[in-house]
Amino acid sequence: MASLQSWLEIDPKSQFSLHNLPFGIISTAEDPQLHPAIAIGDYALDLHVFTRHNGFAALSIFQPYQAVFLSQSTLNHFAALGRPMHKVVRGYLQSVLLKDGPFPGVFQENESLRSAALIPLQRCQMHLPMRINDYTDFYAGLHHAYNVGVLFRGPDNALQPNYTHLPVGYHGRASSIVVSGTPIRRPNGQIFTDPTTKTPALAPCRKLDMELELGCFVCKPSALGQPIAISDAQEHLFGFVLLNDWSARDIQAWEYVPLGPFNSKNFGTTISPWVVLMDALEPFATTGIDNKVKPLPYLDEKGKETHFDINLTTTLTTASGKSTTICRTNAKNLLFSFPQMLAHHTVGGCPFNVGDLLGSGTISGKEKSAKGCLLEQSENGKVSIRLEDGEERTFLQDGDTVMINGVSGSEGSFVGFGNCSGRIEAALDLEYD
Amino acid sequence: MASLQSWLEIDPKSQFSLHNLPFGIISTAEDPQLHPAIAIGDYALDLHVFTRHNGFAALSIFQPYQAVFLSQSTLNHFAALGRPMHKVVRGYLQSVLLKDGPFPGVFQENESLRSAALIPLQRCQMHLPMRINDYTDFYAGLHHAYNVGVLFRGPDNALQPNYTHLPVGYHGRASSIVVSGTPIRRPNGQIFTDPTTKTPALAPCRKLDMELELGCFVCKPSALGQPIAISDAQEHLFGFVLLNDWSARDIQAWEYVPLGPFNSKNFGTTISPWVVLMDALEPFATTGIDNKVKPLPYLDEKGKETHFDINLTTTLTTASGKSTTICRTNAKNLLFSFPQMLAHHTVGGCPFNVGDLLGSGTISGKEKSAKGCLLEQSENGKVSIRLEDGEERTFLQDGDTVMINGVSGSEGSFVGFGNCSGRIEAALDLEYD
Repeated sequence: MASLQSWLEIDPKSQFSLHNLPFGIISTAEDPQLHPAIAIGDYALDLHVFTRHNGFAALSIFQPYQAVFLSQSTLNHFAALGRPMHKVVRGYLQSVLLKDGPFPGVFQENESLRSAALIPLQRCQMHLPMRINDYTDFYAGLHHAYNVGVLFRGPDNALQPNYTHLPVGYHGRASSIVVSGTPIRRPNGQIFTDPTTKTPALAPCRKLDMELELGCFVCKPSALGQPIAISDAQEHLFGFVLLNDWSARDIQAWEYVPLGPFNSKNFGTTISPWVVLMDALEPFATTGIDNKVKPLPYLDEKGKETHFDINLTTTLTTASGKSTTICRTNAKNLLFSFPQMLAHHTVGGCPFNVGDLLGSGTISGKEKSAKGCLLEQSENGKVSIRLEDGEERTFLQDGDTVMINGVSGSEGSFVGFGNCSGRIEAALDLEYD
Repeated sequence: MASLQSWLEIDPKSQFSLHNLPFGIISTAEDPQLHPAIAIGDYALDLHVFTRHNGFAALSIFQPYQAVFLSQSTLNHFAALGRPMHKVVRGYLQSVLLKDGPFPGVFQENESLRSAALIPLQRCQMHLPMRINDYTDFYAGLHHAYNVGVLFRGPDNALQPNYTHLPVGYHGRASSIVVSGTPIRRPNGQIFTDPTTKTPALAPCRKLDMELELGCFVCKPSALGQPIAISDAQEHLFGFVLLNDWSARDIQAWEYVPLGPFNSKNFGTTISPWVVLMDALEPFATTGIDNKVKPLPYLDEKGKETHFDINLTTTLTTASGKSTTICRTNAKNLLFSFPQMLAHHTVGGCPFNVGDLLGSGTISGKEKSAKGCLLEQSENGKVSIRLEDGEERTFLQDGDTVMINGVSGSEGSFVGFGNCSGRIEAALDLEYD
């Protein structure tokens, strides 16, 4: 694919090439109001400012909807305009940034708008891109589910009988979703501090873990009692973020029977701030893991390529400041796609709102270097992971920073997500008399 | 307790006595805008109209906050004012409704305000009282958990090891919460229609159930990483509703391993429309089920009475129109209280927003007539329940209406919840080629 060139200078190594144009919510020290923006190279293009300066004057179809960038502090209203409009707006923004594009007067030659609307990314404070009403986390990473199953039940019963028939998932906690950069406090919870007794104590988590996931925002609502057909599901998907589903394995082991993970997950879930739209990822569409079980018709995509070839990495930085890449995997390592997740989620009539978030589940590859969480990498604490500064880890220590990155494409036309990062803070010292 | 008398004629059998004054959201055919209101006898007192006509003129402390009743279509902003203000506002409304009260000019003698603001309940359309961000359903009904455990694991292992140590719960689906009266469509889902094969099919649920629960709304937010101490938890509780956690038992049995219930619960959860405030229930405070396990300090209420003596019933009305009371129990049949649920939910740092909802879990008594769901009553379909019209049930049939009611106190001063009701509609006929 020949790469699109902009009149704006963009480092060919930038994840925010002209092929990407992800949407997010920014503020700056000078203007603390939250504004919608797109990322381009080392800049955010402030869409509030761009709109106020008649940047969309040449896009008459969008003018009745301009308020989505003027009066909104989330992307929900823009998302709700639907995928055809996302394509039009993103295409228009591409065209005004394009070298020798059709509308040089709108932006390229408009010095005052350029200086007002282009803000260096390092000056931007990022915020949650969407108001998230409901959050569901799936478990569609087959290799992850298998690896974890082997640890707890051995290789013969590693996968539960339902696993290949439906995308297993659970309702997550929307209130604990935070944007990249937010510190994550080690949770206290009921764990067995003395393994010889069967009595739990309240103590800081000793098995603090991360999970490398892809997240997907919904842009089209559906009503109570109304399933979304698999053939319609893609039209409901706004775009993607990276997601770190922080997990407290010792709390989880004690609490999860019979209703699933709870406090082991709801102390924080980090997402990357820029939403990479469906349209930007379409060139990287591919198939996922081949399912030996023929899906029921309501989940049958008939071979359609609904996964994405996104290279994913996890980097662990210790308090020393040294970083180690501890995982390299790919987003196509999923047994079920987001359209399948949505079709399954709604088949019984569960309603969706714009801004609802789906998580993929931990994405592990088959290789040892591609395990998406520390539970797998350390075999539940039995094997140490060696880091480049000479330190070792089984689970996370206070002061560790975990960063997930994801990028598709090649130099000059990268489509990347930016950082999904969080640093672990020490647990609160809880004192109750 | 001597009952408070109003100048307004109130049937002594009314659940909405002057001792209650629950808050809700109404609209009428004449005014389709959503207005906050309280229920009193056979009327709703429209608080939007009452405020606009200077009904709060004699309550200067509240005047800066009057917009919570003027410009809001949910009770979230009123709830966020905090329990001391709820007490003041509710107390003031009681006083203007009181016979020979201190402010007869405000309402009793204000003919035009009375005719504008008092609306017969049968003319009111009820709406969800709160904007619900997150919903968590607990499992604190010990007798229910034991009965279900016996069905699936026998009496020796009926309760899981964690059950008495912490309030087990799971994150529910906020989007599928509906107000009483909303029809519930029987969900389709993966079930075993042919028990001889191990292959699921997509089919209408055959084991559609209800669960009698109490719901509790949160009125005070808490930040990420900040636990709510058990001693502070009651200040975070706004008020209570009845809750029917509709459940698809056959879908649940297949899907719930290892991450808990999902589509078996997210097709609909019904709540009663009137929020009975903490203050109205305080006279009925009592203890719950005695826990033989000493709670960890963060859950220790030190004998405080944090449960409520509320008589609960479930009525099943078939398509014939005949009704049978199929369950009589009491809200005190819980092992953990709502303050304990909230303290546990936040101990690891999970944040709360105003309007978040907690469900108690199914409330069953010890007696056979006090089983709070059909799974228990029918022993998972093995025993038929006889209804008064001669019909029999194991699980719900299309056209059945389930109504939960709850009331505390005695004639002349009842504190009741009104109806929590839903009728089962036939499943969608899903056709996928």
